[in-house]
Parts: sequence; C-alpha cells; structure tokens
Amino acid sequence: MANDTWKSTDSVRTARPLKYARELTLAEPLDLELGGQIDNVTIAYETYGELNERRDNAVLICHALSGDSHVARHNESDDPGWWDLAVGPGKAIDTDRYFVVCSNVLGGCRGTTGPNTLNPNTGKPYGADFPSITMGDIVGVQRRLIDYLGIGELRAVVGGSMGGHQVLTWATRYPERVASAIAIATSARLTVQALAFDVIGRNAILRDPDFEDGDYYDRAGPAVGLALARMLGHITYLSTESMNSKFEANRLEPHDVPTEFEKRFSIGSYLAYQGARFVERFDANTYIRLSMAMDLFDLGATHRQRKDAFARSRCRWLVVSFTSDWLFPPEQSQEIVNALVSLDRSVTYMNIASPCGHDAFLLEEDLDTYGELLQSFLANIDGEPAVPFDEDDDVYACDATSIFHPHRIDYDRIVERIPAGSSVLDLGCGRGGLLSRLRRKGCGPLVGVELNEKAILECVRRGLDVIHADVNDGLAAFDDKQFDYVVLSQTLQAVENVEGLVGDMLRVGRNCIVSFPNFGYHKLRRMLAEDGRAPEAPGLLRFKWYNSPNIRFFTIRDFEEFCEPKGIRILERVALDTERSCEVTDDVNRLADTAIFVISR
Amino acid sequence: MANDTWKSTDSVRTARPLKYARELTLAEPLDLELGGQIDNVTIAYETYGELNERRDNAVLICHALSGDSHVARHNESDDPGWWDLAVGPGKAIDTDRYFVVCSNVLGGCRGTTGPNTLNPNTGKPYGADFPSITMGDIVGVQRRLIDYLGIGELRAVVGGSMGGHQVLTWATRYPERVASAIAIATSARLTVQALAFDVIGRNAILRDPDFEDGDYYDRAGPAVGLALARMLGHITYLSTESMNSKFEANRLEPHDVPTEFEKRFSIGSYLAYQGARFVERFDANTYIRLSMAMDLFDLGATHRQRKDAFARSRCRWLVVSFTSDWLFPPEQSQEIVNALVSLDRSVTYMNIASPCGHDAFLLEEDLDTYGELLQSFLANIDGEPAVPFDEDDDVYACDATSIFHPHRIDYDRIVERIPAGSSVLDLGCGRGGLLSRLRRKGCGPLVGVELNEKAILECVRRGLDVIHADVNDGLAAFDDKQFDYVVLSQTLQAVENVEGLVGDMLRVGRNCIVSFPNFGYHKLRRMLAEDGRAPEAPGLLRFKWYNSPNIRFFTIRDFEEFCEPKGIRILERVALDTERSCEVTDDVNRLADTAIFVISR
Repeated sequence: MANDTWKSTDSVRTARPLKYARELTLAEPLDLELGGQIDNVTIAYETYGELNERRDNAVLICHALSGDSHVARHNESDDPGWWDLAVGPGKAIDTDRYFVVCSNVLGGCRGTTGPNTLNPNTGKPYGADFPSITMGDIVGVQRRLIDYLGIGELRAVVGGSMGGHQVLTWATRYPERVASAIAIATSARLTVQALAFDVIGRNAILRDPDFEDGDYYDRAGPAVGLALARMLGHITYLSTESMNSKFEANRLEPHDVPTEFEKRFSIGSYLAYQGARFVERFDANTYIRLSMAMDLFDLGATHRQRKDAFARSRCRWLVVSFTSDWLFPPEQSQEIVNALVSLDRSVTYMNIASPCGHDAFLLEEDLDTYGELLQSFLANIDGEPAVPFDEDDDVYACDATSIFHPHRIDYDRIVERIPAGSSVLDLGCGRGGLLSRLRRKGCGPLVGVELNEKAILECVRRGLDVIHADVNDGLAAFDDKQFDYVVLSQTLQAVENVEGLVGDMLRVGRNCIVSFPNFGYHKLRRMLAEDGRAPEAPGLLRFKWYNSPNIRFFTIRDFEEFCEPKGIRILERVALDTERSCEVTDDVNRLADTAIFVISR
Repeated sequence: MANDTWKSTDSVRTARPLKYARELTLAEPLDLELGGQIDNVTIAYETYGELNERRDNAVLICHALSGDSHVARHNESDDPGWWDLAVGPGKAIDTDRYFVVCSNVLGGCRGTTGPNTLNPNTGKPYGADFPSITMGDIVGVQRRLIDYLGIGELRAVVGGSMGGHQVLTWATRYPERVASAIAIATSARLTVQALAFDVIGRNAILRDPDFEDGDYYDRAGPAVGLALARMLGHITYLSTESMNSKFEANRLEPHDVPTEFEKRFSIGSYLAYQGARFVERFDANTYIRLSMAMDLFDLGATHRQRKDAFARSRCRWLVVSFTSDWLFPPEQSQEIVNALVSLDRSVTYMNIASPCGHDAFLLEEDLDTYGELLQSFLANIDGEPAVPFDEDDDVYACDATSIFHPHRIDYDRIVERIPAGSSVLDLGCGRGGLLSRLRRKGCGPLVGVELNEKAILECVRRGLDVIHADVNDGLAAFDDKQFDYVVLSQTLQAVENVEGLVGDMLRVGRNCIVSFPNFGYHKLRRMLAEDGRAPEAPGLLRFKWYNSPNIRFFTIRDFEEFCEPKGIRILERVALDTERSCEVTDDVNRLADTAIFVISR
C-alpha cells in the first residue's frame, strides 16, 4: 500500500490542520498509562488573547468528544468555533482579559497525534496500532503544552462533558498548576447507562465490515457504524423535552436528506443528517479511543473514593450541571460537589434550569445565567471580589426578614455570636448578606446553600462559595462537625422536614444558630384571639394564609419544648422586639417577635 | 433456491410452532390498512381456563414487541411463559375464573403469519415481500380469532407496551366487543425519543450487509444489526437506577459470554448476551415490521385529538404506569387518562412507584401492588363491587378527620347537600368513604383523586374510579363544568397552592364543597393566646407544629375574606362543633371547629 493511497482519501479522516492551529512536537516519546509509547507526539493548539507579564491570565479550555482546538473564531472572517458563545472579546471567557488556550486531544483527529496520524515507524497511519489512552494521557500532553507556553499556574481549566473529565484530571493530577477548575455537565465516572450507550456505539463501529480492524484509511471506512454511533449520541445529548419541541409537530415530515438511512420520520432525517455530517469530519478510530478513555475515567463510585480522589486538589471550583441532562445527570455533579465540600474545598455549584439536556452547555438559550456565572467566577479567582457587598442592598428583596423591620437586624446579633476564624455554613444564604459580614469579620471557610439561581449569581459576584440546593433535601453532603457554626436564619418556619433538618444541622455544626418569627408575640396572638384571623405583619409575615411560604406556625415556647425531649442543648436564647429594635428579657414568648437560638447536641 | 435450504435454517426464524399453540387459518384474504393483501393468514394462539356458558369470562392478552402466544405455562412441566407472574390459577388474571386467550401478532415470528412464513404464491418465505402493517391490522386479525372462538364481548383486553397499543386499538375500534381495557406502560403515540431509538435499531438492521433487503432466510441473516437493535432496546427497558444497581458494583467484571461484541464492562457482556439470545429466537424482518407499526401508531398529539380518538370507547378503563419508565413515561399514561376523564369514561389510573423502568410490568418486584390492582379491577367489571364499603372502616386510618371527632361527621353533611344523580369529583378521596356513600345515594359519575397507592387499591376493591394524582398539581385534566360537585374535604389546610386549586375547582365544578378545620375555634385561639403554644386537637390537628401536614393556618373569617374579592359566591356555610356533634349558628368563627362551604363562581 503506497503512502499516496491514503493521503488521497478524505482530508478530514487524515489529519487536516485547522487554519489557525499551531503545532508543538514533543521531543521525548510519550509513555502511556495503559502501556506503550508514542513517538513524535504533535499537539495542535490555538490561542486567543495575550499572556500577560505575570503569566497568570491563562485559561485552558478542554473540548468534548467530538470537539477540536478551534474553540472560537479568531476574527470575523474565520470559521465558527464550537464555543463562540462563551469565548471571545467581551464574552464570558473574555479574550481581552485572558490568554485562552485550546488544544486537540491526544488520540483526536484534528491535528494532534491520533489513529489517523502517520506512524513514523511504518510510514502509514497508526490505525489499529494506535494504543489505548486514558484521560491522564490526554491531560499529560496538555501539561507539556502549558509548560512549553511558559505558563506556571493556569487561572482556570474549563470544560464540559469529556472536557469536564479533563478538568477533574488536571485539578487532581497537577494541583499546583490550577488556580480554578470549571467543570460543566460532567461526572467522576459515567453512569452505567452512559457506558452502555458507548458500548453499543463502539460495537456498531467495530462490527461494521468496513472497519477492517481499524486499518481502513485507504478505503471508505466504517461509515455506517460511525453514523449509527453518532445518531445514538445525539439522542443522549438532547432531552426528551427538547426532542419533542423540535420534532413532535412535524413528526411525519422528514427533511429531504440524501441518505441511505431510513427517512420516514423527521427525527430520522435529523439523525441521518447528523450521522452523515459526522462521518465527513470525524474518524472512527478516534471515536473508539476517546469514548473508551471516557468509559475508563473513574474518580470513584462511592463518596469515600471520590473524597480520596479529590483530596489532592487545591483550587477553587465551579461545578455546573443542567436539570434536564440525563447523560451526565445533576446528581453526578452533586457527587463531585459533595466530595469537595466534605474536603473543605472552595466550591460553588449551580444546577441550571434548562430543558435542553446535555447539549445545554453549548447553546445560547442558557447563556444568560450560565455566561454571567462563568464570568463572575473567573473575575473573583484572586479572592478579591469584583463586586463588594453594599449593606443597603440588604433589604428583603428575595430574603426573609424580621417580622416588623425591613432590615435584617437579626444578622447583627448572629454575627456578634460567631467568633472570627470560625467556619460557617449558612443555610438559605440568599444573596450572601450574612456571609459577606462574616467574611469581613474574618470568618472562614464560609459556605452558603441557596435555592434561587439569581441569589446564587449575586453570591458568586461577591466571591462567595455557594451550593445550589434545597435545604429540604437535607445536609447529607456535609461531614459530621464540619463547621463551627451552621446558621438557619428566618427559614425554619418554611421548612418541610423540621426534625430532619435540625438533626442534620446539629450533626454538621459544632454549634447551630436558628432564628425564626415568634407566633407567640402578643400582637400576633391578639390577631387570632380577638379578630379571629390568621396573624400577619409587615415584614416576614407579610403573606396571606393561602400563599405564605411560612408553613410552620410555632412559638418560642414550642421551639423550647421541641428541643427538650430530643436532648438539644440551648446555649443561648436571644429574644428581639424588631419593631422597637431592642432585646427582650422578660416574658419573651409574649413580648418578642423574633427569636435567635444557639443550640448544640 | 430449494425450499429445503431455508427450512433447514434456524428453527426460530422460520415459524416453529409453540407446543400448546393452536392455529386458525382465515378463509378470506386479509386487506391491509396501508395497502396490499395477505392470503391464508394463520393465527397461532393459546388458551387457558374455560369459556363459561354465558361466554362472558374471556380475557384477551396482547403481547409486546418480542413476545408470543405463550403468555403462561399450561402445566408444571411446560416452558415458562412471558407473564407467568400474572396469569395462572389463582393469580391476578385467574385462569380458574377467566378464559384467557393470547395470540402471536400478525407479522410476528412465532406461528402467526409474518415475514418468515412461506408465501403460498412463491413457495418461499415472504421476506422483503411482507407488507407494512399497522396496529389496526394486528387487532383486526385478533378480532377474527375472537369471532371464531364465539366470544361476543371480551371481559377485558390487557396488554403492556406494544400490547397496550393493541388494547387502545381494541377499545376504540371495537367498543362493542370490549367490557374493559387494561392498558399498561403504554401511550397514545411514542415519544420522539422512543421513535428515535426505533429508527436507529432499524437502521442497524437495514444497513447490516447480511440483511440482503430482507431476503436472508437461506443464510445467516443480519445478526449484528438485530443484536445492536436489541441491545439498544434493553437500555430503554431498564431505568438508570436499575442499571446502576445491577452493573455498578462490578462494572469492570464482565461475564464470560462467548461473543464477538466488546466485553470490557459488565454491562457490555450483559448487552452482548441479550443481543445473542435475541438473534436466536427472533426475526429481523419481524422486528422491522412491528417496530414500524408501533412508530406509526398514533391516537393524537394533542388533548383534543386524543379526545376524538377515545370518544368511541365505551368500556371501563384501568391505566397503569411505572414511575421510572422513561420509554413510556407516566405523563403519556396521564394523557390517555385525561382524555378519558374529560369524556366522562370510567377510568382508574395508578402510577406505581417502581425503580425498574419499562420492564417493571414483567417483574416480580412490583407484583404486590400491581397484581392486586389487576385482580380487583377485573373482579368489579360487572359494576357490583366484590368488597362492599363498611362504614365502621371509616375512621381516620389514612384520611383527615374532623378535629375532635374520630368519625367523618362532615361526610354526612356533605352527602346531604349533593342531590341524587349528581356527578361528583372527590379530591383526596382516601379509601372511598364519601364516594361509596354517594354511590349508595344514586350519584354518578363519581371520580376520586388520591395520592396514596394503598388507598387507591381500596377504592378499586370497592369498584370506584380513582385517579392517582396530587391535587397540588392542579386539575388541568378536567373540563370546565365537568362535574355537578367538586369536593375537597378536610384537605384545604394541607394544600400548597390554595388559590390555584380553588380556582381549578370552581372551573371544573358547577358547585364546590370545601370543608376545613377552623383555627378560629375558641379552644384553639386560647391555646395560642393563653398558653403561647401552637394549637393542637385530638383529631385532624393531632400533629405537632414541626410535622403537621396542615401547612395553612386559617379561620372561617379568613376563608370568607379570601372568597369575597375573588367574586367566589358562598352558597351555603355549615359550621360544626364536632366535639358536641352539632351545628353552630351563632358566633361561628369562635364556636365552630369545622366549616363546610358550598361555593361557586
């Protein structure tokens, strides 16, 4: 077989260089984790923006299974990149501020050494001879590129899906080289279901008679098998909602795609089109090597194993998932977050509400929330928040407040009770008012838990760590006695499972602080007793009986009687009359409208 | 090509008769819905039990894509059937009581005429010549079998998945022949996602070089394509939870399956095994014809279209789904139920909590709930409930009650207010206490909505129609003014979205009856005013502030003030002192512990 034969085949399956890609060839042979070596490894990469003098503004972007180094266009006449939405001048990953690097992965088919590269030892493409690789091999090659570019610490490593696997690998293998990790729609290992889809995709390729054991570069190659694998992939990238919204109305009206695949249904013509396009631009051997590297990627099946795996990481983390992603479901991101949280690592997590499935991270629909999240997180890596906290902001825009007073006067009393240096978990942290005060006081580590996306964004803008979660789901993520203080301010009256949550707080915190409105307050009693109406008040109790988030109706006395038989120790009780802005010491169940309890086991 | 050639090939892909199967051959050619005819159609079927003298105890069971006529074993030495769990002497579908019929579908490969049958006109198997068929064709052939067996009306037609599509077709095509329809894990049409999986499965077969356009009976056939299609099917039959529980612990330890498919992971060896087994017993042409019949099955994409489709049905319905089924998700069963409900058809629905995915309907795990549901429903088809309602049952086992009295004295007052002949929707119907009383009074149609599975089972045992749903999700299923009365008894205080639900009730009912505990009752007021504690009482208010399902705290006066600005007319107010079992007329907000309001728009 002459070299000319396969040189003349389709230019994509052989390594056609991308227009703006540069190349680095490693002098040393590359030793692989599963055995074997590759000589003369070439890395195709693109860069955007300028490396600053301190060499501390570099952001490495890692691509997903079918991506390449062309993450964004370099100028207006350039071809579109795969993440133009997020990368460019003034965008979330701002190339006016950051020096962005993106390289094609080892084993890829767009410039970096892979199965379609000429093997220098045989003069033919590697094909079947290309060894099995791991996420560690892929990231090891990237590390050499970063060395070559003279970058010590990356400001951020960013990636979604398989790109997220690379991010996790970077943060745990080279902790000293990573200031922050942004892991999007990814996991510590695939679900069995995702693994099963990969197995079927590979079987479709491997059993295609045109696969020829991987040595097909002088002929057509396994076009049917690769197209089937890609079709299958496309189902998993979309959600069932997004498939319905795209293909339900015209289900029997296929597009006129030139294809030998079935084209009776619109979804069929879509899949056929995606399959055909993919065969033109991608290589089946690469598909097999990279999907297997994903399938073998494994930072642990259990919380303990994941804690061990993430223990080496030192960076700040941003973990992002999408509610409708079933290929990398949010629970898997939460597993990563739980491991990091219980290791006291700095981590922010958001589960973005999106109907778009796994693909969401590449789509415009979700960029409003998602883009600002990336941008604010990147801006605050240094620790100095770009947006300081203004106490005047701190009225009851989205938070609960005291019952008569529009300002959170309970915050001052809570902050007084927490010594500088204490670690604090704030449940229902809102926009970070209490956490900002505690940071100023010198407390840390500080972690917030919040359900509202906009409130979380505000926290991230202020450089606070916040976990997107519902306190009603409990605190299983946190370790026993992980925090000096756990705070639940003005939220207990809105909690579904009070016993469960208070029990969890007492497990997780050495001390807990709970504040709540006292329905025993004389004015509230009188409303029921004399007017025969459910009590209301201007602040926290401004709701009607039928639309109030306050679903628990109780008094200071009730709370004390709740604690006593459970052996919950009441260390301190602060009773407030928020209308008069003063503390109450006598007849508190009648004269205080708000109570703060410091409790412990 | 001699006949001997393909006769000597694998006995399954040619039509091997099942041991106990009998055959009926139609004298007339069969005209098909999509055009074409088939001559000499033979139907392979099995029967269990005896047809009674009135010929009214026949139950037809319809099989799913890969099933056949052998639904259950005929005796202890017989091969297992595909639904032995549910069909047999003393089982849910009791062959001591019912005459059970199951036939292989048209286009199948186990005895009934299909692509692997000899075409009498050519002397060779049909193969590529076998025409496209529809669910209507399949059911039309079954109808001829039922005619031949001398059965006028089937007591029930039962089926899951594609079997469910046949059930829906029976009930809408031949309403006079069906007394009841039991539709399990099915839909009015496939989701786009399910359609997409089918498209890929068919493409894998059609593009297998051994498919030979469907004329492969003299050689090996498309074993790789058919196995890939089956592997894919298996992913969709399991839930992500059940896949994890089966394959997560030993993910890297495959079973030693003799296979040319990839076998690196345990899930891979499982899929390879399932694929190989399927190729031995199933025919690729049948797979293509039947999956296409499912894909084309369509009773409407919108509520209006589904209402039109189901308008012809006259039978009683039982619709069952499984919470973790994502191939035929519960929402699709709910669409069927919604169409039937808004047509005033008799329908019971249960969404069984199961982690087993679509497969749940064939598994033992879910048989406890599911088996009793089938059995009780079948027993009550005649309208005379096997289990009468005993009023002494009617204490507060699982229902809310009045606040001091253990019996539901509010029921009597509600029943008094509803004239005989009225149609009634009872929200949160519990075990059917109120509905049973209304049935005795001569009201109807009667529909209950209930969340608790066990309570639903009790209702079904009593022959009541009940829909498994959460009233907090609203009443979108019901039409404007569909009922004379909508009742919400002792539940308003536990409702999340009070305005939404009351608004929905007023839309759906000409009149609505709401009963609730009055927190304005003097003893309750006193508990807060004098003791400084959240009110409690022995009945409905027996809970503590922190674990009470009663999340809305309001008085008679509050409710009246809620109605007034919304233009809700209060037709009648009944105030009760349940402790003294009497009605209150003066100072009701202070002296009544329970209120009943009749309201309307």
